[in-house]
Amino acid sequence: MREIAIIGMGLIGGSLGLAIKKQGLAEKVVGIGRREESLKKALHAGAVDKVTLNLKDGVKEADFVIVATPVKTIPRIVKEVTITLPEGAIITDVGSTKAWVVSEIGKALPGGVFFIGGHPLAGSEKNGIEAAREGLFTGTVCVLTPDEKTSPEALGAVSSFWKSIGAETIVMSPDRHDFLIAATSHLPHLAAAAMVSLIETLKEKKEEFLPLIARGFKDTTRIALSSPEMWKDICLTNEENIINMIEKLQNLLGEIKEHILRGESAFLQEKFDKAKAFRSQF
Amino acid sequence: MREIAIIGMGLIGGSLGLAIKKQGLAEKVVGIGRREESLKKALHAGAVDKVTLNLKDGVKEADFVIVATPVKTIPRIVKEVTITLPEGAIITDVGSTKAWVVSEIGKALPGGVFFIGGHPLAGSEKNGIEAAREGLFTGTVCVLTPDEKTSPEALGAVSSFWKSIGAETIVMSPDRHDFLIAATSHLPHLAAAAMVSLIETLKEKKEEFLPLIARGFKDTTRIALSSPEMWKDICLTNEENIINMIEKLQNLLGEIKEHILRGESAFLQEKFDKAKAFRSQF
Repeated sequence: MREIAIIGMGLIGGSLGLAIKKQGLAEKVVGIGRREESLKKALHAGAVDKVTLNLKDGVKEADFVIVATPVKTIPRIVKEVTITLPEGAIITDVGSTKAWVVSEIGKALPGGVFFIGGHPLAGSEKNGIEAAREGLFTGTVCVLTPDEKTSPEALGAVSSFWKSIGAETIVMSPDRHDFLIAATSHLPHLAAAAMVSLIETLKEKKEEFLPLIARGFKDTTRIALSSPEMWKDICLTNEENIINMIEKLQNLLGEIKEHILRGESAFLQEKFDKAKAFRSQF
Repeated sequence: MREIAIIGMGLIGGSLGLAIKKQGLAEKVVGIGRREESLKKALHAGAVDKVTLNLKDGVKEADFVIVATPVKTIPRIVKEVTITLPEGAIITDVGSTKAWVVSEIGKALPGGVFFIGGHPLAGSEKNGIEAAREGLFTGTVCVLTPDEKTSPEALGAVSSFWKSIGAETIVMSPDRHDFLIAATSHLPHLAAAAMVSLIETLKEKKEEFLPLIARGFKDTTRIALSSPEMWKDICLTNEENIINMIEKLQNLLGEIKEHILRGESAFLQEKFDKAKAFRSQF
């Protein structure tokens, strides 16, 4: 590729820039952002060759554009850049929900440019360009979510891109992605946030809890540290699946509660045995 | 101390043996267990000097006894050993719930021996003597839960013991411990187990979920790998607090669900912001 533009200079955008530069995948990498501070840091870190606050300016010569901004903003940004993009350019994104994004973009995509939805299952509880690192995608999976209108060549190009920075790609429909990921990623995040909130709602002082926070709690709630803005958008673009999973979790917790209330030792042990056995497979 | 007896040669019992031997805290360490296999491994690992399947035999010359078995078995074991223990001996335990254990033991403790409830906040999702390691307690906290009848000297001795193997000790009432730990440890475990079960209950095949399991899910559900037997006992000896916390979590998840249903973007962001800020303190 000649020129790659990355929109959004956060953890993912910055790490993409570093990986692209490391692999020499483009002659030029342009970083586009909304905060001058992050752009300066990205440039300084060597994640990009050029930075700009101006979206249209940044993409005007790009043949490959990656949108790495919170989900809700993606369709608007794609719409804006498609006006200026050179013929044949490919756009992809890294949003954590796909059905809404793909459908919104599908409504407005002009001929001559291509969009492929993507979701790299990589990240960190740390946010921002400061946390970016070249190896973030090594050994991870990136889900690509074409629809019936997607060009196989563009899909192939995006897939090759991810492979060249160390990720495996898997392909599934946007709806399928959103359903499965609601269980494996969105629900765990909400549960983690809720468990942290729970402690805050108790009347006890933080000082009393602090020494009782051990590794189990820390591991379980680590993802509650990730970007609130990102997670708010995820919730509001995968509502149905997330609500479904929340209700399932409420019910499963209710079952455990019933077993405890009734002192059903064997049922509890069986539940924990099964969960342990299933979890061991991952 | 002259002779320390450890009852239960699992992860905690074995690690205690290794730490005691390393620090040279006793002339002799006796390991008592119910499975010959684990005893052999403990001996081979150098966690103990002598092993036996016979409880009374194992403790008859001990001046310090640590019970490292599942919670439900602790009062019965303590009752059994107090018959044979030398005058002045101190018994402590490592159970994850304290009110029931301390109260049951208090009913039956003869004069001349001392019991102090303890809960080291150390462990691992790995179980068994195979996972034992000398440094398991270094830098961790051990909660000690005396009641009104506890001898201050015995409490001091148990506290010194934990400090000498690298743990800080904090002292609180059994009830207080059980309430706080229900929020910081018991609930996270149950939520982790429930999130794993949730995926198993979905009709989708394991193969479909597998590539979508990323670090967030793994961290959040790691504790679902810990001993089902241990957790069943925890649930059944801290029922009230755990049920209280389950209901609070169900309600907090319900609130998030309502915000999503109503598209309340600002409320969601605020919730996640607050959770992130609170979690950052730990």
